[in-house]
Amino acid sequence: MSFVRDTAVRRSGDHFDAEVVPGWDVAGNANGGYLMAIAARAMAAVSKPHPVALTAHYLAPAKPGPVTVRPRVVKEGRRFSTVSASLEGAERPLIQLLGSFADLGEVEGPVRIDAEPPELPAPEDCFAMKRSGGGSPPPLMSHLDLRLHPDDARFAQGAPTGRPEFRGWLRMRDEPLDAFALLLAVDVFPPTIFNANLPIAWTPTLELTAHVRGLPVEGWLRCRFSTRFITGGLLEEDGEIWDESGRLVAQSRQLALVPRA
Amino acid sequence: MSFVRDTAVRRSGDHFDAEVVPGWDVAGNANGGYLMAIAARAMAAVSKPHPVALTAHYLAPAKPGPVTVRPRVVKEGRRFSTVSASLEGAERPLIQLLGSFADLGEVEGPVRIDAEPPELPAPEDCFAMKRSGGGSPPPLMSHLDLRLHPDDARFAQGAPTGRPEFRGWLRMRDEPLDAFALLLAVDVFPPTIFNANLPIAWTPTLELTAHVRGLPVEGWLRCRFSTRFITGGLLEEDGEIWDESGRLVAQSRQLALVPRA
Repeated sequence: MSFVRDTAVRRSGDHFDAEVVPGWDVAGNANGGYLMAIAARAMAAVSKPHPVALTAHYLAPAKPGPVTVRPRVVKEGRRFSTVSASLEGAERPLIQLLGSFADLGEVEGPVRIDAEPPELPAPEDCFAMKRSGGGSPPPLMSHLDLRLHPDDARFAQGAPTGRPEFRGWLRMRDEPLDAFALLLAVDVFPPTIFNANLPIAWTPTLELTAHVRGLPVEGWLRCRFSTRFITGGLLEEDGEIWDESGRLVAQSRQLALVPRA
Repeated sequence: MSFVRDTAVRRSGDHFDAEVVPGWDVAGNANGGYLMAIAARAMAAVSKPHPVALTAHYLAPAKPGPVTVRPRVVKEGRRFSTVSASLEGAERPLIQLLGSFADLGEVEGPVRIDAEPPELPAPEDCFAMKRSGGGSPPPLMSHLDLRLHPDDARFAQGAPTGRPEFRGWLRMRDEPLDAFALLLAVDVFPPTIFNANLPIAWTPTLELTAHVRGLPVEGWLRCRFSTRFITGGLLEEDGEIWDESGRLVAQSRQLALVPRA
């Protein structure tokens, strides 16, 4: 199994065919970042090579099987191209997207960073999320090497920190990371709500926006996901992803539903 | 002049007509939040009453004059409806949008807030941005009462704080705030870059996502806009808006271009 192969798209006239491959799911539903990566590959194929700002609205859960991506170039610019797209299953639309694409190899400009990557023990001293055969952790962990900060990992033993936050290392098990893998990375940590002391088991994503700032070097990603506002039946989950060279490579924010307890 | 009237849309078959009214501009170009509010009114007219998560990609600067909004319902759900839209000028598309709409009067659920609204002196002790007839502050300040934290306001005298952040109070001069006015509110503070010690005069918006968490009570909005990552030729500007009752009513993030010095 391979992320690059399992997110591949094949042009067929004005649309693209792809396959939601089993194993990229949580409890039977394909991961939202995985779906976003499939759609983004088709959007990049009609515009520019990398997603820079990509928003997805999630319409229905996706099961394994054939999907169709219909990208439409809204504006072809010199540096950025704006593209909308739908990703549709056999019976219904699954996600709707809007994004700006560019060549991330070309970016430059002044740099100023007023934040630090999360402090983490070495990967070997973190908590490895492994596919154990049960329902948890989810099947997609067979593709990913995700190492949670030990302080944040105790939720799995029924001892949440009380802070809706997860920090950890992430890499693919068998292949390097590309810009599209960052779209997956922003959506594969456990929901921050698992570390809040609230009687909520799941927070389905309404909307996810990812900003890709640069192409990651090979190695571990250093990640942090946190929530500050649980209100109005909604919560935001803010992500920051740094590569092994210490550069911020992606930021994300998703808005998720907080079901009534 | 009135925000409600100046963002009104009139249905005309499958699209909506509207007018970009002079006076909602910065240096001749209509404010991005003002444009978003016009489009959102048309999107709400075909779906549900309030924007909850709305993303706009900015394609071209907008001058005063007639515009057309073409909304399309992607999915009509029970609680949320997903809608895409374009806002077009006479000659070209100006912004492309994707959003989820709902009735914000209906929301409820558990509440947990891990952040404080910004501490601000009383509005009368803050720095009032006024339309002085020159190029700065911009014309749209004739509609808005914006009071910057005095510490953050000294950029106007050539003494930026060095921190890319603005805090302040905001209200409309002559009318109450609705959910659509929050879309304006997330884009009317001075660019955070004005308080960074960098030789950058302007940061055009590539993409803006606003999350509306609740309907504001009448009175002042307490606002904070900040930037942590200037890198890859881009910066993010994160906004938080609290109403006078102390509730978070909106969050925003925009991705803006950082022109080379």
